[in-house]
Amino acid sequence: MTLDDFSQYARRRVDQYLTQGLSQYAPAAHLQEAMSYSLFNGGKRVRPMLTYAAASLFGEANELTDASAAAIESIHAYSLIHDDLPAMDDDDLRRGKPTCHIQYDEATAILAGDALQTFAFELLSQQKHNKTTIQLQLIQELVQASGRHGMVTGQMIDLANVGKNIDIHALEQMHQHKTGALIRASVRMGAISTGAHTEQDLSALDAYANAIGLAFQVQDDIIDITSDTTTLGKTQFSDEDANKPTYPKLLGLDGAKDLAQSLHSQAIDSISTFGMTAQPLVNLANYIIGRNH
Amino acid sequence: MTLDDFSQYARRRVDQYLTQGLSQYAPAAHLQEAMSYSLFNGGKRVRPMLTYAAASLFGEANELTDASAAAIESIHAYSLIHDDLPAMDDDDLRRGKPTCHIQYDEATAILAGDALQTFAFELLSQQKHNKTTIQLQLIQELVQASGRHGMVTGQMIDLANVGKNIDIHALEQMHQHKTGALIRASVRMGAISTGAHTEQDLSALDAYANAIGLAFQVQDDIIDITSDTTTLGKTQFSDEDANKPTYPKLLGLDGAKDLAQSLHSQAIDSISTFGMTAQPLVNLANYIIGRNH
Repeated sequence: MTLDDFSQYARRRVDQYLTQGLSQYAPAAHLQEAMSYSLFNGGKRVRPMLTYAAASLFGEANELTDASAAAIESIHAYSLIHDDLPAMDDDDLRRGKPTCHIQYDEATAILAGDALQTFAFELLSQQKHNKTTIQLQLIQELVQASGRHGMVTGQMIDLANVGKNIDIHALEQMHQHKTGALIRASVRMGAISTGAHTEQDLSALDAYANAIGLAFQVQDDIIDITSDTTTLGKTQFSDEDANKPTYPKLLGLDGAKDLAQSLHSQAIDSISTFGMTAQPLVNLANYIIGRNH
Repeated sequence: MTLDDFSQYARRRVDQYLTQGLSQYAPAAHLQEAMSYSLFNGGKRVRPMLTYAAASLFGEANELTDASAAAIESIHAYSLIHDDLPAMDDDDLRRGKPTCHIQYDEATAILAGDALQTFAFELLSQQKHNKTTIQLQLIQELVQASGRHGMVTGQMIDLANVGKNIDIHALEQMHQHKTGALIRASVRMGAISTGAHTEQDLSALDAYANAIGLAFQVQDDIIDITSDTTTLGKTQFSDEDANKPTYPKLLGLDGAKDLAQSLHSQAIDSISTFGMTAQPLVNLANYIIGRNH
């Protein structure tokens, strides 16, 4: 399967699952509209692709794989809504469209983000799955990746770093929390959803996920200074403007490109043990380094 | 046990469990400080009291009772932080102390609220409990009460109602979501945590919780116009000022007092089947109607 085919497959599955899960609940129509607006905003669904790709190492994706992909995407969507708020990054545009608080208002955006977080745990805890042990493991993974041990702390570190000179270690720590933790959870939860993995498999997948998680961020920083605003769907040099630390600033543009390549090699090496079944994960690593938006 | 003794018992247990659960995670020190500030703000711990009181109908409270009480209190704390934000109710004071975004800043307050929501699911999903079926039931209850099916939708309806003339039915629907759902969950989760309840027990507890949940809100509205600012720890007539619909406005002060009494009777009747073991729940119903702050 080509990466394009795989991307369509993952998008179709996760979007269908999200749409079904978010079925209308009358008193919350306006809230659910704002939740949908942000969930279906044209995102690339990289995290769901990682979840399905990791699951495919161990067999067919099942409904808990869908629930995992959808839950991760809900957490991702909530984090983008809250990060875009005036009190945080104050962004008006995301993927070329008004951010949630611009399209609706700030109160609705805060609440839509809050409800999307709860929705993630709703998807994973549903009684119909009837696999309580695996469900609890998935919830534990998502908690670790998204709360005070992961993503929220990353955003906190990020805000504290604006305008500061930080070293590469501090930058890496920030990214490991802010985006790395959820990318690692995407891969791990794909494997765990099948119930067919070993601890050794999870270690190999951790190494893969850590490498591409960081590569993803290095590439983001590179793109921010090499792509124009139309391609990006957000303002070029937005990181420069915000006086945020970036890899090109710390390592130079060539140094950052070298780092991205080196992380790419680490990622591929980590999953060589899986052989041909790892092709979707290899394709995703290639895509993350090769993308220009 | 008197209500005071029971209150101290519940507070000691839930505070200890929250403190242990929120053990320090180095990169998140500032975040956890803001989380603690809001978790330990002198709140009366009414919801944990309900959880322990409901559990006591079926035997001894266990560690999942503690986790339930602590998780509900985390959700309650997160909702207060977000409700107090400038884009929502814009409150500077809560219980006579600066609200989270005043004490820290708006970004920290948004993130502390986000992390407190995740923390609630962390407490309930922990592997050490080793009661996967009950844990998932508790998570489902909390999801239903706090997300788009409950509290968040209630806050959304509340914001939409400001400055509007709404009828008593619409006011009740708002309160059932905004505060009623979590109060019902507090009682239900107490019972479920013991694993010793029947469906009939839950129905009786639902009736009790629905009545005291609404009574709590009616009493809040009454207190807002009959107590002074010092007793309240917030500005008197703050609901009047915000042009919010209230029970005294719709029913008159005497009508609101009659409604509170009638709901109190309903609550007591609902749990008469439990006999003497229901004394803590009876005391709590008395307290909710009798309080003046």
